[in-house]
Amino acid sequence: MNEVINCAAYSKGLRVANVELKDIKHVLQQDDHFVWIGLHEPSEEMLNEVQQQFCLHDLAIEDAHNAHQRPKIETYGETIFIVLRTAQMNEKHHIDFGETHFFVGANFLVTVRHGSSLAYTEVRNRCESTPQLLGKGQGFALYAVMDSIVDQYFPVVDALETELTAIEEKIFSEKPSRQTTEQIYELKRELLEVKRAVSPLIDICNRLMRFDKKLIAEETQAYFRDIYDHAIRINEMVDNARELLNTALDANFSLISISQSEVSKKMAGWAAIIAVPTLVAGFYGMNFRFMPELEWQYGYPFVVTLTISSCIIVYLFFRKAGWL
Amino acid sequence: MNEVINCAAYSKGLRVANVELKDIKHVLQQDDHFVWIGLHEPSEEMLNEVQQQFCLHDLAIEDAHNAHQRPKIETYGETIFIVLRTAQMNEKHHIDFGETHFFVGANFLVTVRHGSSLAYTEVRNRCESTPQLLGKGQGFALYAVMDSIVDQYFPVVDALETELTAIEEKIFSEKPSRQTTEQIYELKRELLEVKRAVSPLIDICNRLMRFDKKLIAEETQAYFRDIYDHAIRINEMVDNARELLNTALDANFSLISISQSEVSKKMAGWAAIIAVPTLVAGFYGMNFRFMPELEWQYGYPFVVTLTISSCIIVYLFFRKAGWL
Amino acid sequence: MNEVINCAAYSKGLRVANVELKDIKHVLQQDDHFVWIGLHEPSEEMLNEVQQQFCLHDLAIEDAHNAHQRPKIETYGETIFIVLRTAQMNEKHHIDFGETHFFVGANFLVTVRHGSSLAYTEVRNRCESTPQLLGKGQGFALYAVMDSIVDQYFPVVDALETELTAIEEKIFSEKPSRQTTEQIYELKRELLEVKRAVSPLIDICNRLMRFDKKLIAEETQAYFRDIYDHAIRINEMVDNARELLNTALDANFSLISISQSEVSKKMAGWAAIIAVPTLVAGFYGMNFRFMPELEWQYGYPFVVTLTISSCIIVYLFFRKAGWL
Amino acid sequence: MNEVINCAAYSKGLRVANVELKDIKHVLQQDDHFVWIGLHEPSEEMLNEVQQQFCLHDLAIEDAHNAHQRPKIETYGETIFIVLRTAQMNEKHHIDFGETHFFVGANFLVTVRHGSSLAYTEVRNRCESTPQLLGKGQGFALYAVMDSIVDQYFPVVDALETELTAIEEKIFSEKPSRQTTEQIYELKRELLEVKRAVSPLIDICNRLMRFDKKLIAEETQAYFRDIYDHAIRINEMVDNARELLNTALDANFSLISISQSEVSKKMAGWAAIIAVPTLVAGFYGMNFRFMPELEWQYGYPFVVTLTISSCIIVYLFFRKAGWL
Amino acid sequence: MNEVINCAAYSKGLRVANVELKDIKHVLQQDDHFVWIGLHEPSEEMLNEVQQQFCLHDLAIEDAHNAHQRPKIETYGETIFIVLRTAQMNEKHHIDFGETHFFVGANFLVTVRHGSSLAYTEVRNRCESTPQLLGKGQGFALYAVMDSIVDQYFPVVDALETELTAIEEKIFSEKPSRQTTEQIYELKRELLEVKRAVSPLIDICNRLMRFDKKLIAEETQAYFRDIYDHAIRINEMVDNARELLNTALDANFSLISISQSEVSKKMAGWAAIIAVPTLVAGFYGMNFRFMPELEWQYGYPFVVTLTISSCIIVYLFFRKAGWL
Repeated sequence: MNEVINCAAYSKGLRVANVELKDIKHVLQQDDHFVWIGLHEPSEEMLNEVQQQFCLHDLAIEDAHNAHQRPKIETYGETIFIVLRTAQMNEKHHIDFGETHFFVGANFLVTVRHGSSLAYTEVRNRCESTPQLLGKGQGFALYAVMDSIVDQYFPVVDALETELTAIEEKIFSEKPSRQTTEQIYELKRELLEVKRAVSPLIDICNRLMRFDKKLIAEETQAYFRDIYDHAIRINEMVDNARELLNTALDANFSLISISQSEVSKKMAGWAAIIAVPTLVAGFYGMNFRFMPELEWQYGYPFVVTLTISSCIIVYLFFRKAGWL
Repeated sequence: MNEVINCAAYSKGLRVANVELKDIKHVLQQDDHFVWIGLHEPSEEMLNEVQQQFCLHDLAIEDAHNAHQRPKIETYGETIFIVLRTAQMNEKHHIDFGETHFFVGANFLVTVRHGSSLAYTEVRNRCESTPQLLGKGQGFALYAVMDSIVDQYFPVVDALETELTAIEEKIFSEKPSRQTTEQIYELKRELLEVKRAVSPLIDICNRLMRFDKKLIAEETQAYFRDIYDHAIRINEMVDNARELLNTALDANFSLISISQSEVSKKMAGWAAIIAVPTLVAGFYGMNFRFMPELEWQYGYPFVVTLTISSCIIVYLFFRKAGWL
Repeated sequence: MNEVINCAAYSKGLRVANVELKDIKHVLQQDDHFVWIGLHEPSEEMLNEVQQQFCLHDLAIEDAHNAHQRPKIETYGETIFIVLRTAQMNEKHHIDFGETHFFVGANFLVTVRHGSSLAYTEVRNRCESTPQLLGKGQGFALYAVMDSIVDQYFPVVDALETELTAIEEKIFSEKPSRQTTEQIYELKRELLEVKRAVSPLIDICNRLMRFDKKLIAEETQAYFRDIYDHAIRINEMVDNARELLNTALDANFSLISISQSEVSKKMAGWAAIIAVPTLVAGFYGMNFRFMPELEWQYGYPFVVTLTISSCIIVYLFFRKAGWL
Repeated sequence: MNEVINCAAYSKGLRVANVELKDIKHVLQQDDHFVWIGLHEPSEEMLNEVQQQFCLHDLAIEDAHNAHQRPKIETYGETIFIVLRTAQMNEKHHIDFGETHFFVGANFLVTVRHGSSLAYTEVRNRCESTPQLLGKGQGFALYAVMDSIVDQYFPVVDALETELTAIEEKIFSEKPSRQTTEQIYELKRELLEVKRAVSPLIDICNRLMRFDKKLIAEETQAYFRDIYDHAIRINEMVDNARELLNTALDANFSLISISQSEVSKKMAGWAAIIAVPTLVAGFYGMNFRFMPELEWQYGYPFVVTLTISSCIIVYLFFRKAGWL
Repeated sequence: MNEVINCAAYSKGLRVANVELKDIKHVLQQDDHFVWIGLHEPSEEMLNEVQQQFCLHDLAIEDAHNAHQRPKIETYGETIFIVLRTAQMNEKHHIDFGETHFFVGANFLVTVRHGSSLAYTEVRNRCESTPQLLGKGQGFALYAVMDSIVDQYFPVVDALETELTAIEEKIFSEKPSRQTTEQIYELKRELLEVKRAVSPLIDICNRLMRFDKKLIAEETQAYFRDIYDHAIRINEMVDNARELLNTALDANFSLISISQSEVSKKMAGWAAIIAVPTLVAGFYGMNFRFMPELEWQYGYPFVVTLTISSCIIVYLFFRKAGWL
């Protein structure tokens, strides 16, 4: 796959030219033009080229190269450097996380994708189809990509909530199992990962809305508040699921104990029933010389009948007490 | 059901005219007039019409169309956009949530209802019957609707507290059951939902009281503090119920264990009682040639009597120890 | 009981006259006079009368009528409205909560008592006996009443701490019981209620000390800091008790399990002891033609002796292992 | 014991005179002199005398008389009133708490000791031996006493940490016992008490460093930061111990359950072993006319051998499964 | 080992001279020179020498001598004193903590190493190889050492996460054991220690970036933000691991209970199977005169067959119920 996915100059919301990386400086000298570049896991040389074209800071470039950053926003002089984490459910119902980095300057936007994530070509197309919005500058392009990243979290969180519902059903309708406990643990782990990926977004949007007025046109602020709002919503959904999960873990545990208690009761009940014939048999197994019952002609069937009747009475007693 | 429930112009607290949507711009040009519109699940066209009449922001209209927002307040230029969640107990003793959106401008108030919630016609009537208050402008109308929404949470929270009391009684008076555990879980879930719906209200009222002095007349501020106060109260009731519920879950668990322990003790006690005749019977079942007792004439009745007495002694012993 | 408990005008710390409600306006025109009124569950008409005399806000009067408010402080123009919760232990060792509302203006103080609480006549007497302090104005009278309310919480919290100590002793010295678990739960509930009643006081005192300098003479500030300090102390005592209670619940649970474990061990130990004679008896109950022991003259007493000795050995073994 | 432990005037870091309480006013008129008084559980008259000499506030004197305050700092006009809690391990390895109150003015320091605590004579001596430091004024004397109070918490916290280590060892190496659970609870209680005594110190030092520049010479600020730092360290140690203790409680509980599980397994294993001879004996105790084995000459020894072998096999089986 | 590891003067990023401690004052008089000294567990005399050369504060020198400080930053006049904790995994897979203290002045940096930690010679070499960066002054040298300290935490946290994964596997695949519980406890303890060591770093970096602009060149700020970012990341990893560990402890506990429940069920199942032949044997051991089966020629083999078949049926029944 190509490292440079797209590199174009825009003016008044319209794509005016596809540009080569080395020509960027030239393009940037024109007023009201901005350049939007999309990179995918770029090599070190490529990043150095980009660094030179836009005068980016060493530390930002270093971060952009080694992915595995936490989501953050940092200002280096006139440039903002943003790191976001992307998420997608894979076919095995696990979450694949990726990373996208942004360099935003007065007249440029560079996006750097790492790991699993969709290309932003579609986002670019959507932007180009609404030139009145894209005309607001690179701030709007930044919004469009960030928005598409955040929107990809909703199906992820929905999947986790479905998983939670499945766990609830297992807990309350099936027998307690090791597997359910392991699923609870796994879900907790995934919720924590999503939370770690999304919660810094709230602060990032806040910063973009409030402090970076130079790079983000004021009329674009409302759009970042929209992302902010989505981030808070995802955050709340995750927190909610976490709290429910903790309660589910406790409930699961109570149910294991109740189930254990039921086993004990059942065992006690049957032990009592079996104790009856054991007792009787033991009794008439004694070798006393004078035990009149043993001599009766119908002693044996009588005792057998008596024993079975007693068993049934004991059974009914425990049944009524709810132990059997 | 009609999409437009009500659309009227007010001046000095009095309804001066019912207006058609398309005539609104005309009405708004008159001084000290404001328009109050009530919509119910409006179509996209209807919302676009409203957007044009009041120059509303795209993002707000988009939110108003797709319900399922979290409660929030947002300022778009001169207009405030508010989202609230409404709640009602249905006949199955579950909570039905709905949503109401507000657009508030210098001389208009638009309410958009979604999902289950009462119509605000009654609120409107009450407002119209106190023109000295409604004369304070669209801010008071906003208060009146918000107040009626918040007041509907009190019966909901009361129902949840009743449910909590019912659970407590079950825990402390009945035997531990799977059903109680499930009810605890369900109540927790509902409390979390109410909390999510109500807690943003505190921030919303704060914002309305402090920052939006242009749209909300200063003499109306005290009314929003009233809603603020109610929101805090509901919040506290929910937090309280949650903490008690957590303790109830723990207490439930302790009681399950105690109950399990009692079963063990009972089982042990009866096992000990039954062990006595079993032992005796086994003993006199031995085939030794010289066992004098076996030859006694009253050996059998003597042994039976002895056994029964021993059983009674063992029984009393365990009774005293509290195991039976 | 009369609705108006007391209604007097004060000047320079001295009671100058008992006033009728309808004459208040007249009195208030005199410089350096203030009026202190004590009401007890007033009727709606009475409250309306008061409202007219002092020009109070509708919402405050509404709150003062329907008790069941949360503790709060609110400013309506020149008047402060304060709600406090009062608490007392009743004879059944439960907490009775009441409510007292205050209207404080430039030259008046109105207290409105609801539900169970002591009359403030004694507070008034104490104030009147220190005219140099009461001379600081209605702010000092407000302090005196609030202080007496807060001081009534100390015996309540002491009673709850005594209850906690009683629970601790039960947990660590007695057998685990359902009753202890229920007491823990009840104590938790009461602690939460006290917390809800007291914690808003911190904020209320803060507001009185900082922002309402017009109504509260600066030299009175130190007194409100004193209440603030008491509120914090009660709060800390409650938090402490709550955390200990949670640990007590956990400890209780551990002890239930240990106790359960001990039952199992005891049962296992006695089962082992009884197994010995059962085995022996079963063995010599076999019908083999050639079992030499059965023919021995002293076989029977020998086996009995052997069995009893074995039982004793087994008993001592389990004793040493700590199972019996 | 004398109420006035020490009462001396200092100038330029040197003790210039021992003063009588009633002569203090006279001494204070001299420039660059300050008076340092040490009281021990003073009577009410003594405190009134001190109040008059230094013009102290009623509420502060009241607090100083009734000990049992929470640690706090309060400013009354030109004077600061500080309450600290002191702690010492007694011979029974429990913590004895005491209280020390400070009145700090422009040229005086009064310390009032209550309950168990060391006298500050040693601190005073140390101060007098470094006149260049004591020359910084009563602020340094205040620091010296506060520092000695805070330093006495380190051995206390060390003792609690040693206790925690002892509990850990008991949990992980010994059998679960009621005593360990009770020790955990007691340690938790003591940690909470230390926390309550130390955590307000952070705020107190902060206030002394930032706001009270008049009474505390700027060059003394660094010293209070030192106390601040110690308070934070003690706080952290306590929080750490608390969190570990909570985990220890949980771990203890897990181990109780494992131990319970082991008892069950052992019991099951031995029951299985004993079941073998019981079965065999029962079988050959049947009275069928035709049971060839009963007639064999070596039937009895053969069956006994077979039974013992079976028992051994069952034993080995359970041994391998880890149940025995 | 030598106490003075390194002591050199730098100008414009180049090492211009190795200096003796006593000559430092002389060197410092030269413009744009700074001195970088590395000490290792210095003696008290050495520290006093350093104190005199750089006019350091008594309290800072005292702290630097007694290690065992918590990480902190303190300003003494023109000098900053920083304490950091270093961490390394030792061969026994435990964490060795050390301490490094920094004195930073207008033209000097003194590092004081205590306990286990790598020498900073390598860091110094790396700095000297990039004179354009080291030219930014002692601020950059400070960054370089701090960065190397923070970077050493990543392998430590990785090792702890590996340990967590190992524990998870044990919990979910093996049988519950005392050892796993102890490992969970140990890991918790280590996580708390790392947290205590790292979390103050966030505040330290914040302070360095914002307030100490005199000593830290503005262009160096970005570098401290980098450390800040790493500290937050380590913090998050630790918090994450802690929360997962708590859940693991709970899950472990659930699994112990399930396992206990399985033992009970197995025991009950086998007890039921053994009850069959016991019953039958007891029955035909009765001594009734008239029991026709006993007389049948094939009574014995018939009964044996019947018994074995019944046992198999009972076995299959429990197998199906999942108890065996």
